[in-house]
Amino acid sequence: MATVKLLTDAEADAIPAVKAVFDDIRATRKSDFVNNFWRGLAYDPALLKRTWEQLKEVMVGEGALDPLVREMVYIAVSTANGCQYCVHSHTAAARAKGMSEAQYGELLAVIGLAAQTNHLVTAMQIPVDPEFDVKS
Amino acid sequence: MATVKLLTDAEADAIPAVKAVFDDIRATRKSDFVNNFWRGLAYDPALLKRTWEQLKEVMVGEGALDPLVREMVYIAVSTANGCQYCVHSHTAAARAKGMSEAQYGELLAVIGLAAQTNHLVTAMQIPVDPEFDVKS
Amino acid sequence: MATVKLLTDAEADAIPAVKAVFDDIRATRKSDFVNNFWRGLAYDPALLKRTWEQLKEVMVGEGALDPLVREMVYIAVSTANGCQYCVHSHTAAARAKGMSEAQYGELLAVIGLAAQTNHLVTAMQIPVDPEFDVKS
Amino acid sequence: MATVKLLTDAEADAIPAVKAVFDDIRATRKSDFVNNFWRGLAYDPALLKRTWEQLKEVMVGEGALDPLVREMVYIAVSTANGCQYCVHSHTAAARAKGMSEAQYGELLAVIGLAAQTNHLVTAMQIPVDPEFDVKS
Amino acid sequence: MATVKLLTDAEADAIPAVKAVFDDIRATRKSDFVNNFWRGLAYDPALLKRTWEQLKEVMVGEGALDPLVREMVYIAVSTANGCQYCVHSHTAAARAKGMSEAQYGELLAVIGLAAQTNHLVTAMQIPVDPEFDVKS
Amino acid sequence: MATVKLLTDAEADAIPAVKAVFDDIRATRKSDFVNNFWRGLAYDPALLKRTWEQLKEVMVGEGALDPLVREMVYIAVSTANGCQYCVHSHTAAARAKGMSEAQYGELLAVIGLAAQTNHLVTAMQIPVDPEFDVKS
Repeated sequence: MATVKLLTDAEADAIPAVKAVFDDIRATRKSDFVNNFWRGLAYDPALLKRTWEQLKEVMVGEGALDPLVREMVYIAVSTANGCQYCVHSHTAAARAKGMSEAQYGELLAVIGLAAQTNHLVTAMQIPVDPEFDVKS
Repeated sequence: MATVKLLTDAEADAIPAVKAVFDDIRATRKSDFVNNFWRGLAYDPALLKRTWEQLKEVMVGEGALDPLVREMVYIAVSTANGCQYCVHSHTAAARAKGMSEAQYGELLAVIGLAAQTNHLVTAMQIPVDPEFDVKS
Repeated sequence: MATVKLLTDAEADAIPAVKAVFDDIRATRKSDFVNNFWRGLAYDPALLKRTWEQLKEVMVGEGALDPLVREMVYIAVSTANGCQYCVHSHTAAARAKGMSEAQYGELLAVIGLAAQTNHLVTAMQIPVDPEFDVKS
Repeated sequence: MATVKLLTDAEADAIPAVKAVFDDIRATRKSDFVNNFWRGLAYDPALLKRTWEQLKEVMVGEGALDPLVREMVYIAVSTANGCQYCVHSHTAAARAKGMSEAQYGELLAVIGLAAQTNHLVTAMQIPVDPEFDVKS
Repeated sequence: MATVKLLTDAEADAIPAVKAVFDDIRATRKSDFVNNFWRGLAYDPALLKRTWEQLKEVMVGEGALDPLVREMVYIAVSTANGCQYCVHSHTAAARAKGMSEAQYGELLAVIGLAAQTNHLVTAMQIPVDPEFDVKS
Repeated sequence: MATVKLLTDAEADAIPAVKAVFDDIRATRKSDFVNNFWRGLAYDPALLKRTWEQLKEVMVGEGALDPLVREMVYIAVSTANGCQYCVHSHTAAARAKGMSEAQYGELLAVIGLAAQTNHLVTAMQIPVDPEFDVKS
């Protein structure tokens, strides 16, 4: 159960500001499927629009990072933040973008290792080496 | 200040189990620099050895993921876990492995966006779409 | 499923220290409903009592902050800590205290934005401006 | 030290896309002060622009929530996410918007209490009461 | 639902590297039960092996800390990281190792209190007292 | 720098409600040292009193858990929550209560391992085994 109502297609179609975003999601992804996140976010059409436009700009299309790499970074952040839904949706997205079994296994290994050393560093309060400073 | 003493080279050399790991770090990285994390972890030589061997296996050498991609995932996890030292050391490592300014800018954008949608999803408690289920 | 048994009313009534707290919860809230958190916490009557008294002091009654504002802050913390139950219970409480749809939309927007800039700041390790220092 | 260079005014003025945002920050806030976050984010002018526009839309001006309430929610999220810079900058902002000592004391109390019950709930894995479900 | 397939015994037996770990888990624990974590981790046999060997070294057998204390520390970390599965599995493990009701009640109290003071400290940005410095 | 003023002894003595708590801290700990946390929390005397009384009840004196074990659990939670001050103060407290080097090494190992498996579990979204259910 969610704290907001998840809009059905009929309900979304009845609100022009929501319909416009849903239409763009479908056109951009070339798929009829609009996942629950957007159906919940439609609760606040301005927030829905801002969030979708940001996601489209950051995650869709060409860039300096391969789209699959961006999805794997997304999985990493979502895991550390403990967001179940986000882990599921972005793991599915990464697979749809071609993540291989071997790549996923390595991704899991890096996420687990990073968490371990993050906690060790914090527990020991290791000071930053001056060598890591950015030369401006 | 740390909660443990950071070993100097002389102190590390005096403990064979620590010296062996420091030697391997230097040989593997082809550099004399041993950063503070290992100097603190030397507090417990068995933990030092296990952690280094794991890191060498996961982060060094060929794999299904490019070494730079692994560093970027590491930065993402370290950021979400709020580990300052880890953010610094792995951002430096990513740059040493060729991360461009444009790639770093996109990495930041993905990390920020993921955190935002993670929190929106958690605040609204969006249920996982059945479409994301793994077909076994 | 929980890691502790959730006490039924009959079971709670049989333990005087638990019954006293449940009675006070009902009297304070003017409602017969005692939610699962307290039924689980009854596992340790001293912890139950301390937690309830603290909650009553902080969240109930007049104060410098409106009760609804306190609930919204509670939702914010619970979201960032990834506590599903707490998100549900305090969103329900905020609505019971009059949170409007527009207010909830803005709350979501602030939570999401804060999470994004939190992560951007941590990834870039921005130093605190001296202007933010407290003048003592 | 940061992982990116913090732009001086002279450096910011030399990049039109950055200058435009800095000018708008100054005009919107009616102050010459541009804090370090924006000077770091200028690293990626597109990210700078998107983040500022979002912040202006969410945090500035009239809304369903009082601007001070929005700052207090921001402090709450920043605290739970462990962002030192954000805690400092938004506590300063809340004070600039009139947060009283009594209000700040209550804010601290709510943040601390929420964190405590968040952890108790997670440790006990309390199931969500059906009473908290949203009636659609 | 998981993002990976959880291997059945028959599937695990068909992969020698997985069978070897499952056999060792059963022999070490003197029980036929292999919990879902290992069945999912079997997705990547090398990660499965590394993780199990590490866990066996850290959590099983004699040490400077009582095995029950180690489980309680595990519960504490898992709670703060919001890992439901880990909370359940390590609470069950702690009980199997003899955790009493009174001990569990105190564990909950410490976890809750620590979370509260963690957040208060972060919200107030308390500087570390020089008295806490390690004398090297 | 903190977001609140840290009271000096002279300032604390001038506020009876603060002085009473500081006196009790000194008497309970049999030490003149009052660490910065309490000097900051004195900002809100009621919050100071509630927090100290709770800490005294949970952390001081006999109980089902050894005081050292309670400190180690506190370190674990503080690490996972990324609270630098708390890590420092409770590591110092654990050492004052007799934590040996070997015990601290094991504590670090458990914290690191737990964080790793927490993240692996969350990334794979492992479902809870029915065997872990509490028999009521």
